[in-house]
Amino acid sequence: MTEIITGKDNPLIKRITKLMSSAKARREEGCFVCEGIRLCMDALYSGAEILCFCCTENAYNKYQEDAGRLEKAAKRSTLISPALFSRISDTRTPQGFLCIAAVRENIPEIKKGGCYVGLERIQDPSNLGTILRTAEALGAQGVILSGDCCDIYSPKVVRGSMGAVFRLPVLIVDDFTEYIADAGKNGIKTYASTPRDARSIAEADLSAGGIMLIGNEGNGLDDDTINACTMRVMIPMKGRAESLNASAAASILMYELMKAQP
Amino acid sequence: MTEIITGKDNPLIKRITKLMSSAKARREEGCFVCEGIRLCMDALYSGAEILCFCCTENAYNKYQEDAGRLEKAAKRSTLISPALFSRISDTRTPQGFLCIAAVRENIPEIKKGGCYVGLERIQDPSNLGTILRTAEALGAQGVILSGDCCDIYSPKVVRGSMGAVFRLPVLIVDDFTEYIADAGKNGIKTYASTPRDARSIAEADLSAGGIMLIGNEGNGLDDDTINACTMRVMIPMKGRAESLNASAAASILMYELMKAQP
Repeated sequence: MTEIITGKDNPLIKRITKLMSSAKARREEGCFVCEGIRLCMDALYSGAEILCFCCTENAYNKYQEDAGRLEKAAKRSTLISPALFSRISDTRTPQGFLCIAAVRENIPEIKKGGCYVGLERIQDPSNLGTILRTAEALGAQGVILSGDCCDIYSPKVVRGSMGAVFRLPVLIVDDFTEYIADAGKNGIKTYASTPRDARSIAEADLSAGGIMLIGNEGNGLDDDTINACTMRVMIPMKGRAESLNASAAASILMYELMKAQP
Repeated sequence: MTEIITGKDNPLIKRITKLMSSAKARREEGCFVCEGIRLCMDALYSGAEILCFCCTENAYNKYQEDAGRLEKAAKRSTLISPALFSRISDTRTPQGFLCIAAVRENIPEIKKGGCYVGLERIQDPSNLGTILRTAEALGAQGVILSGDCCDIYSPKVVRGSMGAVFRLPVLIVDDFTEYIADAGKNGIKTYASTPRDARSIAEADLSAGGIMLIGNEGNGLDDDTINACTMRVMIPMKGRAESLNASAAASILMYELMKAQP
């Protein structure tokens, strides 16, 4: 790499900034930014198409082997001055590594006996990232998101997911309630997490697998979605009747679903 | 309230800024800042001593009832200009409410049959806040923190805990490993979460209660601490062998501990 970009008005820099801040830009371009060595290598090893690799000269020299691999895989590679990198970075102490990766279509095949997570209007990128990471670690076969969840390719979600966004099959549906109702009609179990008229997740029969649904941080699942589900479940809470954080609740619910599988 | 503070060099403003950014200042003064209406009211209703209440004039008029209660309870109350409030606020869209609350000594009594969480060198304030919130919701009787965990009174932890810091008994110990070893000698069960030589948390006998231990985000528990525990447990993971986020793991581990209680 001989080219060094130093100016903030460079078209590539503008593109990166746009891709980091705008879900619309990511959707239109079909790509997103991964920052940090770990995420860049994760993208590469997960088979993501690397459209562009950028790093600082220092980082290039310090992590030669990884930089070399990314440079080889990327359609375009360039150096960026440290000052400019700090400016566009989403982190406080940037490592000086980023890439633009192409979104890959990877839709879960929803089938009986499989385990999935359904997320309705999750708004907090940290929650979404953690839920994706947990879903992958526990072995869920895919995630179904309502169209109004926050964008899974925002820098915070990508980072929080620890790369699960590269690998976990994800389906985004606009009419979430209808999708869940249809799944139920097709014999897929659907579990609404709600404190109302629900059975304890510790006692529910989850052995058939299905879709575990988690709702918005403030309001939970929509009533229509709850009514469309085949079962209602709740986490038994012995303490203060204050709801759990969405990602903490999701962890427990997914864990019980996975544990019930043979 | 007639006084309005507008200058950033005002001693109270400097004190608030210091208390928000410095764990040392919080320790020395024995107090911390709670921002937002919900947290301020939570502090009040949880019986915390309110040393100072500050709000913008707008917020005072908009939330008269709550403001009135805080004003009555607080040793000192003052208005702050909106521009100054934005400057000191830890959030992007400040509500214009904050208070300084006194730290209250509230140490858990560790006894047989009780359920507790032990945290060793947790570094991320969001993780710590979520773990405290989850511990309270699930009904843990207290938390034991190693002295090198991040400060529980930092704004991020206080916010993430949803006020659990006001109510949950917390003990901070400098020699964490020794404390855990002593607890074990005194007949308290201590569970080390570690992937090595551990039994599945789903199959472990947790009915005696005890202390569930969770370690640092990157490195887990210290070997010495693991060796000091009476049992090793792990979360069964069917997916990618990538560890769970510390707060996700803590949620599942605490949930299983609480579920096993009669």
